[in-house]
This record gives sequence, C-alpha cells and structure tokens, in this order.
Amino acid sequence: MNTVVVGGGVIGLATAWQAIRQGVTVTVIDPAPATKASHVSAGMLPPGNEQLYGQDDLLRLCLASRALYPSFVAELEEFASAGFRRDGVLDAAFDDDALAALDHQQSFQEALGIRTERLTAAECAKLQPAFAPALGGLLSPDDGAVDPRVLNEALITAIEALGGTVVRRRVVRVADHAVTLDNGDAVPFDRLVLAAGCWTHHIEGLPHDAVPEIRPVKGQILRLHSDRPLLDVTARALHKGSSLYLVPRPGGELVIGATYEERGYDETVTADGTRELLNRAAAVMPDVGALRFAEISAGLRPAAPDDLPVIGPTDVPDVYLATGHFRMGVQLAPVTAVAMAAYLTDTTPHPSVVPFTPLRFSS
Amino acid sequence: MNTVVVGGGVIGLATAWQAIRQGVTVTVIDPAPATKASHVSAGMLPPGNEQLYGQDDLLRLCLASRALYPSFVAELEEFASAGFRRDGVLDAAFDDDALAALDHQQSFQEALGIRTERLTAAECAKLQPAFAPALGGLLSPDDGAVDPRVLNEALITAIEALGGTVVRRRVVRVADHAVTLDNGDAVPFDRLVLAAGCWTHHIEGLPHDAVPEIRPVKGQILRLHSDRPLLDVTARALHKGSSLYLVPRPGGELVIGATYEERGYDETVTADGTRELLNRAAAVMPDVGALRFAEISAGLRPAAPDDLPVIGPTDVPDVYLATGHFRMGVQLAPVTAVAMAAYLTDTTPHPSVVPFTPLRFSS
Repeated sequence: MNTVVVGGGVIGLATAWQAIRQGVTVTVIDPAPATKASHVSAGMLPPGNEQLYGQDDLLRLCLASRALYPSFVAELEEFASAGFRRDGVLDAAFDDDALAALDHQQSFQEALGIRTERLTAAECAKLQPAFAPALGGLLSPDDGAVDPRVLNEALITAIEALGGTVVRRRVVRVADHAVTLDNGDAVPFDRLVLAAGCWTHHIEGLPHDAVPEIRPVKGQILRLHSDRPLLDVTARALHKGSSLYLVPRPGGELVIGATYEERGYDETVTADGTRELLNRAAAVMPDVGALRFAEISAGLRPAAPDDLPVIGPTDVPDVYLATGHFRMGVQLAPVTAVAMAAYLTDTTPHPSVVPFTPLRFSS
Repeated sequence: MNTVVVGGGVIGLATAWQAIRQGVTVTVIDPAPATKASHVSAGMLPPGNEQLYGQDDLLRLCLASRALYPSFVAELEEFASAGFRRDGVLDAAFDDDALAALDHQQSFQEALGIRTERLTAAECAKLQPAFAPALGGLLSPDDGAVDPRVLNEALITAIEALGGTVVRRRVVRVADHAVTLDNGDAVPFDRLVLAAGCWTHHIEGLPHDAVPEIRPVKGQILRLHSDRPLLDVTARALHKGSSLYLVPRPGGELVIGATYEERGYDETVTADGTRELLNRAAAVMPDVGALRFAEISAGLRPAAPDDLPVIGPTDVPDVYLATGHFRMGVQLAPVTAVAMAAYLTDTTPHPSVVPFTPLRFSS
C-alpha cells in the first residue's frame, strides 16, 4: 500500500514513521517539514491536568499517549536522540488561588494513577532554587518534556532510514487517488493522510464537509539561554489565574510559553507577546533577566470546531485526517501515530481514538 | 601619504572618506566593518541637550558637527543615500518633572541659536498621534536622525569608489611604520589612525601611555517594525527621570533605545534589557505592542577615562587616535572626520577638536 502523508509536522512525521514500521510505503509531502507549530512548541509532557476535568474522552487519549511515550521514544532512539526527559514536572503555586487549585489537581491525578508529591514552600525552593518564593507545589515525578525540534529531526531520520520519502513541495489539490504539487507534478496514492495542521482544509478537491475547518490559534513563545540551565525541573508557574510553561533543556535553553491569540493566519512575533512572556517570567524567576534573549517565535496551533483532535478515516474512501491537536500535538503524537498506522494497515486502532473520528463533522 | 585607519566603524570610515577626499591614500582595516557600536546605534541627531550643560568644550564640538552634517551628507550622497532626515526632534514630557525640564532645555537651545517650538499637550498629540497623552513638548524643527546602517554602507561605497581599500582582517600589532594583521601580513603606513572603539588600546606595540584605556559601555537597543511607521517624528520620551530614544525610519522600522550597562566586553542581549525597553516603550506608546519584534542587539560604546572623545595626534610620531565618542559617535562623525583629515594633511583642524587631544592622558 502506497500512502501519502500531507504535512511534515510532528503528527505527520510520527504517523509516517509508525506506518513505515508496519510495512506501509510512505511519502511525506511538506514545503518545509518541521518548521511550523511543533517546531515552535515547548514540548512539555504534562500529567493530566485541570483543563481535562470533565473531558473524559480527551483525558483517555492523553493517558494513552502518556503510556506510549517511553516505548515510542525508545524505538525512535534506535535512529537518533528524541530529546525526551521524564524527570518530573513541578506545578508551583505563587498565590492562594493557585495553591488551592493544587489540591484539586492532586486528587485528580491520584485518581488516574498518576504519581504526585505535594511540596511545601521550602521543598519547592530546594527543588527549583531559581524560583521566587512559591506557596507550595505539586511534583509529578513520572512526567517531563521532549524537545520537539530534536524529536522532529529524529522522526525524519527514522523515516528516511527505513526507506520513506520526504518531498519538499506543497500539495495544492487532491484528485482521484493522486495529489497535485505546487510544481504541477502528480503523486499517486492508495491512501492519503492529511496532517497539515491549520492548513489541512485549504487543500482543494475534497467535498466541503469531509474536512472540517481547522482554525489557527497563535502562540508566541520565548527562548532564553544560559551556560548552565537556570531551572532544574520542567515546571508550570501558576500565578494570577494563568499557567506559565517553563521547559529547561540540558544545553541551557529555557523555553517560556505561551500566548494564546485568535488572529487568523498571522504568525507575526510582536512587542506585546514578547513583553508578556518576559514580564511573566520575571515575576516568578528573579534571576531570569540575565539570560540571553535567544528567540521569540510564533506558531499556529490547529483547532477543530470543537477544539478536539480529528483522527481517522473520512467519508471519502482512502482519505484520512490527523489534525486538530490544538495545544497537544507533541503530547498526542504517539497515540495518534500508532492509531493511524493501525487504520492504514486495516487493523483495529486503540479505542481511545475512536471518539475523535472525522465523521463527527459530516452531515 | 599612505595612511592606515584601524577600525571600520562610523568614525574610522568617515575619517577615511574625508582623508581620501583630501588626496590621502587610505587603507581601512577591520575584521568586520560596520558591525559594532555604530551599526547598533539608533542614529538620533539631537539638538544640544541637558547632558551638555556645563560641558562647554563638548557642546562646541557637538554644535560644529551639527553644522557640518548637511554638507557632509550632501557630499556623501553623490555616492549613495546616507539615510539622513532633518524633519524635527520632539522632546515629549510625560510627567511634571520632565515638563519642568523642557523649560531649561528650551532656554539652553535658544541661547545656542538652535530653533525650538514649545508644544502644548494637544499639539504633541497632533504631531505624534501614537503617543500616550504627554503634558507638553519641545520641538527642535532643524534636528533629526540618520540611519547608521545606511550611513556606514554609503561611507564604504564612497571610500571604495574613490580608490580607498577596505581590508577585512584584524590588526594585532603596530611596529615601526607597519601594522601586523592576524594572518601575519604586515601593512606599511606613513601615518596611522586608531579608531577601533573600545578595542583601540588592545592593539599591541605602542607605549602604554600613548593610548588611554577605552572602556566599553554596553547598550541594548530594540528594533520593531510595522508596515506604516508608528511615529511620524524622531522623539525622546521623557518619563520617570529618563529619556527613551524613539527613531522611526521611513520603511517602518522603529528603533528604541537604549540601556546603559557597565559590564566589560559583554555583548549579550538579555531578557532584562529587552524587557526594560519593551516596558518603557509601552508606557508612552499604547499601540506599540502590535508591532513586529524585529531585533534586539547590543553594542559597546567606547568611553575614555574622562568620558570625552579622543581626537588627534599622540606623542608617538605619525600615530593618531579617533575614538572615545561614547554615545555620540554617529553625531560627532562629521566633525571628527573633517578634523582628522586636516591633521593627516598637515592643515589646521577645526578649533573645536583641540581640547580633545590624546595628549591630555600623557604623563
């Protein structure tokens, strides 16, 4: 079976790799693979959290992906490092409301079997000395982060090592079992996976209701740098009703994110986005100001009309979707990829993906 | 006469150009011309200001350079645009202290013959609609700014068009009428100008007291961008005891600066430097947040022990200095260059440069 995957972000690349491992012949097509939303992402792999209260389907999907991550990474690291760390995520509360929220968070995680440790103010200071005084914390010792840039690179390496092809062109149209590229070439397929994030529904030639509109939700994200990492542990700083993601990398990079902006396809990095992240970071890390300003960048998270992932076959024969992962693309890549490989080989996917069928948008 | 100029910043380049125009054969040597302090500078050409109260020698030097600028630019523009504008500088007061300071500023400028117009709050808003409400302003209609990147580029073009040479190497040593480059080559000279900013005294082979220590004063500076310029007029925003430089360019760039930091040769752009400039800009321009974040950069201003320029012959025969211009390199380039060309052709320099002789540091 010859499969074309349109989109070389983390979802398209992970899907391609998993399908190739199952014997599928795969061509990934993307004008600039690994340069959009997942390239910009911080790559935090958080434990179940408050955003998932009452969203049982999404929670099950997250837990399935969390369970898959270690083996997914281990298999990928036969080809290249995946930049994975699982040495804990600290939720640190910097005000009373945040401290109260940690109680709920802890009960929620414990009920799901996700290990937690409640930390006092002094224990937070000991674990993360670069933080301003926190009122308390919650450590999830089995969670962590991945470096999406390293992960994407490893996926491309693995795909090519296993005989897959990455074509650096833009797909403009789908016709009967072939896609047309921006240079006019046609690439035939037996099966087609559309994983082009918020550009997925721009591909021409499919019935309007087969592909839901995937809206872009802009995120600006900051990268600072120091010779020695400022933070020891991946963290969320809970402060004034919001949560700031802080992901340290071993080489000294500190990723700080992110803004949420509904501004269409605008990828501009702005003075305000930069200022917001710098001010929020300075409020919780007194010494962050001395770090080198390395990068401000913006990505467009792909959001379906119901803000939930879109994974599986459409009502067009042989056309599949893997998109709409919103803020969770990196986190949900393993479960999505494994499920898509199952669909592409006519085996039964993990049950957690079933609710995310594209058919929910068909009339 | 064969002259070598060490240093391809605005002072070295302007000196080379003026000397070539007087018939001198010139070689400029710099590992990376036009990439250091003047490349980063905003290029504001302000009227005489408070910093000059009581510094009569420096004030005379500034006024001489201000008078020279239009002809300097006109002659340079026979080769390329110099990015010069002389459509006014607005000092806008955002608190009572700043408003009171404008009175002094106005008397000071009027006494020097620099034209001013006092503006009401309403007139400020009309002239510069993107400003937050100011309490009042002082417009200096005959002053303006230059784009130092365009200016440096034009100087290199003019030097090469007139037969001068720019060598992209580092000078490590001065011996008897020759400099040694980092590749071991020797370049002979009849006369030598050292214009290497805060690296000037690092050149080996000269008596210790011939070249004063030129200390680096770090400045971080921000460049934002919009399709249409946010500001109409070059401005200084006077607020909370400090002055924020705001230099709009016709293409939509807005230069915002700068920090002052004594941190040795550290050229790191930091989270704190960026944050300070963004917060100060947002305080006086409510809509600045939507602008694209284009660049944060840092330069090292060259400061002599007395913080004053160092221009003229040393007590080593045929060795001259043109450095120590601190925050005024772009502003003082014309008077420095014309004076240096006079020294190099054994004619009498403008009297305003005489107090800045390097001999004041000799024992």
